[in-house]
This record gives sequence, C-alpha cells and structure tokens, in this order.
Amino acid sequence: MENVINYLNSNISNYLEELKEYIRIPSISTLETHKDEMIRCSEYIANTFRTIGMTRVEIFPTEGHPIVYGEWLGKPGKPTVLIYGHYDVQPVDPLNLWDNPPFEPIIKDEKIFARGANDNKGQNFTHIKSVEAFFKTVGEPPVNIKYIFEGEEEIGSGNLVPFLKEKQDLLKCDVVLISDTSMYAEDVPTITYGLRGLLYMEVEVTAANRDLHSGSYGGAVANPINELAKIISQLHDKNQKVTIPNFYKDVLKLSKQEKDNFKRLKLSDKEYAKEVGVKVLQGEKNFTTLERLWVRPTLDCNGIIGGFTEKGAKTVLPSKALAKISMRLVPNQNPEKIAKEFTKYIKKIAPKCVSVDVRTLHYGSPAMVPINNNAMKAGASAVSKAFGKKAVFIREGGSIPIIVDFVNQLKTPAVLMGFGLDSDNIHSPNEHFLLKNFKNGLLASAYFLDELSKF
Amino acid sequence: MENVINYLNSNISNYLEELKEYIRIPSISTLETHKDEMIRCSEYIANTFRTIGMTRVEIFPTEGHPIVYGEWLGKPGKPTVLIYGHYDVQPVDPLNLWDNPPFEPIIKDEKIFARGANDNKGQNFTHIKSVEAFFKTVGEPPVNIKYIFEGEEEIGSGNLVPFLKEKQDLLKCDVVLISDTSMYAEDVPTITYGLRGLLYMEVEVTAANRDLHSGSYGGAVANPINELAKIISQLHDKNQKVTIPNFYKDVLKLSKQEKDNFKRLKLSDKEYAKEVGVKVLQGEKNFTTLERLWVRPTLDCNGIIGGFTEKGAKTVLPSKALAKISMRLVPNQNPEKIAKEFTKYIKKIAPKCVSVDVRTLHYGSPAMVPINNNAMKAGASAVSKAFGKKAVFIREGGSIPIIVDFVNQLKTPAVLMGFGLDSDNIHSPNEHFLLKNFKNGLLASAYFLDELSKF
Repeated sequence: MENVINYLNSNISNYLEELKEYIRIPSISTLETHKDEMIRCSEYIANTFRTIGMTRVEIFPTEGHPIVYGEWLGKPGKPTVLIYGHYDVQPVDPLNLWDNPPFEPIIKDEKIFARGANDNKGQNFTHIKSVEAFFKTVGEPPVNIKYIFEGEEEIGSGNLVPFLKEKQDLLKCDVVLISDTSMYAEDVPTITYGLRGLLYMEVEVTAANRDLHSGSYGGAVANPINELAKIISQLHDKNQKVTIPNFYKDVLKLSKQEKDNFKRLKLSDKEYAKEVGVKVLQGEKNFTTLERLWVRPTLDCNGIIGGFTEKGAKTVLPSKALAKISMRLVPNQNPEKIAKEFTKYIKKIAPKCVSVDVRTLHYGSPAMVPINNNAMKAGASAVSKAFGKKAVFIREGGSIPIIVDFVNQLKTPAVLMGFGLDSDNIHSPNEHFLLKNFKNGLLASAYFLDELSKF
Repeated sequence: MENVINYLNSNISNYLEELKEYIRIPSISTLETHKDEMIRCSEYIANTFRTIGMTRVEIFPTEGHPIVYGEWLGKPGKPTVLIYGHYDVQPVDPLNLWDNPPFEPIIKDEKIFARGANDNKGQNFTHIKSVEAFFKTVGEPPVNIKYIFEGEEEIGSGNLVPFLKEKQDLLKCDVVLISDTSMYAEDVPTITYGLRGLLYMEVEVTAANRDLHSGSYGGAVANPINELAKIISQLHDKNQKVTIPNFYKDVLKLSKQEKDNFKRLKLSDKEYAKEVGVKVLQGEKNFTTLERLWVRPTLDCNGIIGGFTEKGAKTVLPSKALAKISMRLVPNQNPEKIAKEFTKYIKKIAPKCVSVDVRTLHYGSPAMVPINNNAMKAGASAVSKAFGKKAVFIREGGSIPIIVDFVNQLKTPAVLMGFGLDSDNIHSPNEHFLLKNFKNGLLASAYFLDELSKF
C-alpha cells in the first residue's frame, strides 16, 4: 500500500489537471440544450475507464442520458466493489453570482472552483484515480472493480432504476461504494448511513384566461400569485410543521441511541446561523437542528414565478403563477403516497376562483443502510486512515434516491463515503472542493479497496 | 362640420397606415435597452405635429424620456384645449402568447392588433388626425390647440409632474382632453370622471447569504419563497379586505347617488366571469363588482420570482425571493401615507429568520373630476354624436396619476373620453383596438373641438 499511497500523493497536480478537463464539459442534465454535452461527457468517462485499465467498458443509451459501465474482474475469489458516480451537474443560474465562469475551473485558496468540482465529478474522480494507482504501482487492484456512472442524478435517476432491475447480473457485487455525501465538518472523516428521500412537485395556479390590466380588473378577478402565496402559506403551521394530512404518519421515531449520537456531535446553532448568514435558524419546533436536517421531513419552495419579473414596473394581473415545491422525506415515508396526499390537499385548499394543476416531477425514497457489516468497517477504517482521525457515522439531509434502489435491487451493503463539505456551495454559484479533501478522498478510496480485500 | 366629418370618414384607411408606422416604433419605457426607440418615437411625434399644422413644436428632454409639446394658437378669444397622450407602451412579455409580433401591427376581424394599438397610440392618434382634418377642410381648427405627449406614463410619469409645475404658462388652457380610458361597454359612448390611484412596491426577502442545497439545509434555514408567500397571504383577510393598518382610513364613502348610478349600469357578474374565463369572481366582501373596481382600493401581486424557474427541477433553497406588489387607491387615500403603512406592516409581519427590503417604485394619486361644467357637456355631446347613442358617465379601475396633477397644477377641467374596451388586452398579449372605435374616436375628437368652440 505504501507504493500506492506515495504514487497518489505525488500525482495530485496531474490529477487536478485531468479533473479540470472532466469539469469543462457542461453536463447539465436538466437542460434540453445540453443533450450533446451529456453524450460527450459519457464518452469522456468511457475513455477514462478504458485508459486506467478496465477490461470491459460500455455506454448504455437510455431514453434520457447514457449510463456508463466499466469493469475489471481480475481477482476471482476477492470481493467485487461497484462504484457509483454521476457525471451530470446542476444548472448554473444565477450566473452573475459566480466569481469565475462555472465551467472554467480554477484553483484558488487551496480549493478548486467550478460547477461539478465537488458534486459529483470531483468526488467520483477520486475512485477512478485510486484504481489507476494500483495498476500503475502494484500491477492491479486488490479487489474486483465495477463502475456505474449515470447522467441523471440531478433530475431523479429516472432511467437508472429500470437499468438496475434489468442488469442485475451485470451489476452483481459485494458492496456499493458511493461518494456523493458530505463530511460532518472539515477534517472529520465521515461515513453516512442515512439519507432523506425527495418528492419534487409543481403547482400551477390559473385565474383569468389571459393577463389582465391590474387597474381595469383588480378587485374583481382573483390574482393567481396572491392565491398561490396563500396556498404555500398553508403548507406549514406556526410551529413549522408540514400541514399535509398524514404527512408524518409513517415517519419513524428517532431512537434514543441515535438521538444521543447526534448530541455528541455538538452542533452549534449560533455558528451554523453565522455560517449561512442568518440571524436565527428556522425549523420544526421541538427538534434540534441535526434532527430537523437528518430525521425529520421538510417542505421547501425551490422556485416561484408569475407575472412581470424584470426590472421596473408592469401593472399586470397575471393569468398564471407557478411554484416548484419539494419535500425531503425520511424513513418510512413513501413518496408516491405523499404525492397523492399533497395533490389532494392543494386541490382542497385552493379557492374556487382559480384552477390549480399539481404535477409530480420526480421522487426517490429515503434510505438507511445497515452499519454493522464488514464493508462499513472497511469504509470507516479507510477514511480514518486517510484523514488521520477517527471517523464519525452520520445521517444527511440530502437525497440520493438511487441508494434505496441499489440496496433493494442488488441486495448488497452500501458505503457512503463523502469528501465534500456543506459549505462547498454545491448547487449554488461558486461550487468548490477543498484540495485536501480531494487528496484525502484519493487516499481513502485506495485504503478502502485494500481493507476490503482483507475480508 | 359636415366637411370635416366626411373628410375623416373617407380617410380611415390612410390613417390606419400612418398609425401602423407610429406603432412599429417599440417604445417600451420601462426597458433601459429601448432608450433610443423612445427618442425615435418622440421625434416621430414632433414631426407629426409639425406636419399637421402646429406652429410651435418642441421636444423637452427629461432625466427619463422626452416630453413632446406642440401648439397652434390661431384662435385668440376661443378656448384652448390641451390634449394629453403618451407615446410609451407596456412591455410585451410573455412574447410566446402573441399571435403576431407585437410591433408588426396587423388588421384582422375589424381590429388592429399590436402593442400600443390601443394604449395609447391608437387613442391619441385620433386627436392628431381630427385636428389635421380641420386644417385640410375648413382651413383651421375652431379652438386653440396644445399637445403634450409624454413617454413615461407606463412607469409613473415621474418627469411630467415637475414639468407641469415648471411650465404652467406654456400649458395654460381651458380644458384638458385625455383619451386613455375605456368605454363602459361596446357601443356605449363613455365619459370617465373617476380613476384609481396607484402605489407600486417591491418586497424582497433574503434568508441565507447564498443559494443553498435544499437537502443539506432544508429544515434548518428559512426559505425566502415560503416566507414571502406567508407575507403575501397576510395582506388580505378572508373577506378579501386589505389588512394593512389604516389602509381604508381615508377612503371616501360611496354616495347613494353614485351607488344607484352604478346599479343602473346592470353589470352581470356571470357574464363578466365568463369573459375573463373564471368560474367565479373574487373581491372584497359586501361590495358589488363595479364598486370593487371603481371605488374600492385593491392590492395585487404583479410579479413574483425566486429560486429555480426554468423547466425541470433544481433542489435549491434560494437566498432571495422578490414580489412586485401594487395597490389601486381611491379618493382620498394618499399614496405616500399608504407606502409608509405598507412598509411598516411588512417589516412587522416578516419573521426574524429573514431580512426584508421594501421599496417604493412609483405612485400616483386617485382622481375625480367635476362633472358639471361646459367642457364635460361638450365631451358628452361629442361622444354621443360620434357613437349615435347617449353617453354614460362612469368611474374606472385603472390609474392615470397625471390627471390629478393636471387638475391641481393647471386648475382646469379635464375630459376623459376613452375609446378602448376592457377586453382589448391592453397590457397583455394581443392588444388590439376596434376599427369602429378608432373611427368613432376620430369623429368624437372633431365634434369635441366644435362643441367647445361654441362656449
């Protein structure tokens, strides 16, 4: 292992140059206009898999963006690790808030800045280079490797789920390794064992059959923005509890053990508020911040638009207003059931003077992975070695819906080993990745393969 | 007069071609990018004034868009009429809802379609051509003419008010004539004697110092869209009364006489709802629709934006959300007082977990003009002759804040003689003007000058 670790340590700057190439492909999955870039990015991944030593590489087209598969099975009898990553990234708006163009990565203050620098290109690239390091130094990795990189994580992994079902034999493995989570804090090596699910809806309110003059019609005809605002305002009560009927019905109660674990992480609300720039935090009453983030479901408007939104004034009484509303779900909430309850509730509270259309954009289940198994032990040991500090086990507020499908479809343990920080601005302007976390990620990935080979 | 009327009637198609030229100039006053077009339009007006026979024409630059003045004072001893118009138009978005490009006027179904075809180019053009007809037939108009055309009506006439104060001598007149209102209904000649005022505000809610990932932070940090929605939802009570303290304090009670007049207009709520495409109307409880539109103040969101608003899904917990909120005011509400009350109330109801910025964009006072004077009689007589039917006197829900300033500054009666219909989509896609109303407008304008010369 010493050879491998030394090799990785002495090649960091080369890796950063290669990572920049990968990042420069603007693979925004949600934009129709970027379909060709998605294909280009999938081909880039496939080439990389081939270059580092994978013996079978295949690009699987889907109805959406391609899935890239790579494998090296030169260690019969040894475990097989399936490494998941996603090559698609979030949109970049608002563009004017970026200090540098989002797809022109730059290194500044010991960080690499760009869309995808962290989520997920920066993270998944560590698992490519760690495997390469074994080939380049000791001849081959200590375990069998399978890669599956998708291009639709940021839009709900709609085509990966059927793929997992269909390709169970191809994807057979002993453990799934995913780096798409965050570390609990800087310099705290972290294994994540729980993620929230996601349900993403759109609510469109229509009043008049056309935009009207707010002087000539204001006072007689309903205003869809005002009515949408009233609907949104009724989605939380004064204790910030979500008011959708049966929303909390299937939510698992937090065990005393987990509650105590969370307390030991000693999160400071004051520092947290300071970091995000608010005077006070806000959330469901009677729960701590970590509980609200990790084990309680939430509801947020992700976008709203209606009427005149440019600079200046236009006295319009608009015909329509639209909100994008997503919910983070926790075990054992069922996204499909919640979507039905949400739709029913919105239709019920909408007044007769408007019509309302409720659409489900996508969803994914919450996930909890068992922590008492060898794969988890290997994961904890690997990050502890890489970061030189004892690992903590946490849950996370974000969602990787696909985790549930991996666990359910492939019936294997999953290790969620994240190298990002919550403060890395993923999904925001000036996304970045700490160079030290990139480096420690490379080491952790290599240690993990090594640890795994011992079982 | 017969000559004049015949001349007008036989030149309608020429006038429409000239009107098209005027409309083709995209004079959108609110867009910075259209500053040159505004100048071009002001020059077009000035040339037209010169061409028809005005003896003094001047373009007055302002800090915003120019004011165009024209005069012919060849009838000493006869009354002087000051004709007001505005050459600026509303923005055209959403562009995709236009059946034809907004600045390429076309004639279809006995209507002319384009942005500005009605509001206000189509209407003010009638008063240019009527005056020309006198020059071309009987040699000169029967009264003295002054024109004042501004380019900032759609953005609050910010530079006209000081201009009126400064140029009182230049603008001295016996009556102000304005065609920027609507007819009560098709084929019902109408004189308007009351208009609502306007107060246009922006409310910006800020939570975190940057856009956050809604998974990693949702549940801990306030969502500015949700909070803005809560604020908006608190601006009306369940009876659709505006909840801003002291909002109704100065509102004049409707007289029994006006109430009865309104009743005689027999507005059908059912037909009104059908025309705008809603199941039921909505508005302040215990008032009829006409009362709500004409004599009651209202509050409407004209625009809202926050977070991700493109197609697809982005799981962002945004930093900011913005609403444009305007109020229509009635006598004797004071816009400046209401702006203060609004600001105070919003700041009071906003929770501590967000910061809120409240900005006044522009405002104008409500207006009522006296109806018992010769000018009004001339106006009623003119529209009755032109449309062949007895005129009705109405109030209107829209605002021409400048009316108050005309009345107050110039101390003259004002005649509001509108030829548009509420269904003409002014401020909306597919704005249009009925050709018969354009024609009757030309005639009414000529009859008015003739009637006025008799006093």
